[in-house]
Amino acid sequence: MSLALPKFQDVQEAAERLRSVAHRTPVLTSQTLNGRLDAEVFFKCENLQRVGAFKFRGAYNAIAKLSQAERAAGVVTYSSGNHGQAIARAARTLGVTATIVMPLDAPKAKRNAAASYGARIIPYDRETESREQVAQDLVEKEGLTLIPPFDHADVIAGQGTAAMELIEDVGGLDALFVPLGGGGLLAGSLLSAHALAPECLVYGVEPQAGNDGQQSFNKGEIVRIDPPRSIADGALTQALGELTFPIIERYAHDILSVPDEKLVAAMQFFAERMKLVVEPTGCLGAAAVLREIVPVRGMRVGVILSGGNVDLASYAAYMAQEV
Amino acid sequence: MSLALPKFQDVQEAAERLRSVAHRTPVLTSQTLNGRLDAEVFFKCENLQRVGAFKFRGAYNAIAKLSQAERAAGVVTYSSGNHGQAIARAARTLGVTATIVMPLDAPKAKRNAAASYGARIIPYDRETESREQVAQDLVEKEGLTLIPPFDHADVIAGQGTAAMELIEDVGGLDALFVPLGGGGLLAGSLLSAHALAPECLVYGVEPQAGNDGQQSFNKGEIVRIDPPRSIADGALTQALGELTFPIIERYAHDILSVPDEKLVAAMQFFAERMKLVVEPTGCLGAAAVLREIVPVRGMRVGVILSGGNVDLASYAAYMAQEV
Repeated sequence: MSLALPKFQDVQEAAERLRSVAHRTPVLTSQTLNGRLDAEVFFKCENLQRVGAFKFRGAYNAIAKLSQAERAAGVVTYSSGNHGQAIARAARTLGVTATIVMPLDAPKAKRNAAASYGARIIPYDRETESREQVAQDLVEKEGLTLIPPFDHADVIAGQGTAAMELIEDVGGLDALFVPLGGGGLLAGSLLSAHALAPECLVYGVEPQAGNDGQQSFNKGEIVRIDPPRSIADGALTQALGELTFPIIERYAHDILSVPDEKLVAAMQFFAERMKLVVEPTGCLGAAAVLREIVPVRGMRVGVILSGGNVDLASYAAYMAQEV
Repeated sequence: MSLALPKFQDVQEAAERLRSVAHRTPVLTSQTLNGRLDAEVFFKCENLQRVGAFKFRGAYNAIAKLSQAERAAGVVTYSSGNHGQAIARAARTLGVTATIVMPLDAPKAKRNAAASYGARIIPYDRETESREQVAQDLVEKEGLTLIPPFDHADVIAGQGTAAMELIEDVGGLDALFVPLGGGGLLAGSLLSAHALAPECLVYGVEPQAGNDGQQSFNKGEIVRIDPPRSIADGALTQALGELTFPIIERYAHDILSVPDEKLVAAMQFFAERMKLVVEPTGCLGAAAVLREIVPVRGMRVGVILSGGNVDLASYAAYMAQEV
């Protein structure tokens, strides 16, 4: 893992690598919402990205930067969520073998999706094993390169291309709201916003039940929390990373948090008014704007919708919920 | 109502009128689907159009072409569905008063949506009154201009701009699949495809339970059927129009039909794989492609997703349905 902090130039280089490989996702607006908020809100639709999430950007960038020898040996990661799917897909695109360490009880849909991209699945026992250790063993035994989900300079640089495209497409922004888990997307977005729209106030938004980022930002050091419970299953990290935290601490305007029921209301807003399927984690930034947790009146506001992967049964239940 | 058939030049003029007023909706693809079909499928996302459906195009074009005197008197229509909402919204944009004739028992959500755009709602009794007669009375008594949902040259020309944009954006197509109700969208699409991609086979796709268009196409004359029952509530017309039928008869390659359960499967495909909310009617063209009712292997295929308006309770039920 690279230990130097990534810079905006790394984001620009990632954008070159991703050109014609990742989708340049559309930016959508709602006149009704703009009228209600008296603001201009631009939604960057990473739910429409390959594998249904921004994670494809960082995964592809990290694998594409490997040497021929590293590529030949293969890559490993331990996420069974969007990052794992993104690694599997990006690796296949680049002709690299991917290994995904997944809990024995991971949902069959996730195992099948990774396997359908040709990835090797290594199961581990949540009760008795650590996923990081299982992955590290593979690194040592088989010479694989570990690509962790957020605390990696090339992953952060790749994720920053979403905000870069947004600002290129719509022009300057007064505020930008970004979902926050481990901080890869937020750190990358901060690099882009600081370079392209330096006056823009950038907010990270977490689930209320897992606000380690908010605590860390306020305390000035990384705070580790117990495993949180939230429907935002992409933001259940216990702590920010050694690379993401310094970037967030330096450039973020504030870290906000929203309760789960506001995520459901946001999911319904996107289905009903914007015809988009957005997963709970993907609604974090939007929920802060829809509820006007901080003032946005009169502003040009960017929001990253980070992903759209939610199983149909859960989605049906969210749509049926009274909010 | 204009009685001359619209031409492609009318579509081009409509495109000029709609520039910067309607969204140029994105064209999205699914690598997974392309791999499965061994084809390139381009989805034109009119569910992401203003008011959630292509209908905004035709409604705006028709109202924008009115004289100052006609605009001052106002417009009337009798659709409580997407066309009615589109008339209300387009009229407001142009500073024209819209009147929508709606059944007394129309869903509150539809009355509220039209009213929220500032439209006047005139209720009528389904059992004892004809909506066409109620609208005609307003034309005579108040000097309003009637803009019917499909059988109108300026409406057809406006609807044709969606296929025009699709072909402009992705280049030539071998086949194009278009939802078919009264035929406004299909007739407009045929004008564009004939001019811009003359080799393209254009299919209209109806709900199986309401296949008046298929019957008409095969018989060579307009066939009127009993009011059909289908979840495709935007395609429950009993007959094609006097203007739409001749264009369809002349240029369409064939008219297909799909059963309702295939529409539910298609809605689930769009939610799960493409993160899009598409209403049942909007899935008609797509369902024919997903089920390979006609061969598409090796082809470049366009599909118009015509709309995304479906109430959340119904949508939740469709997502939960076993297919």
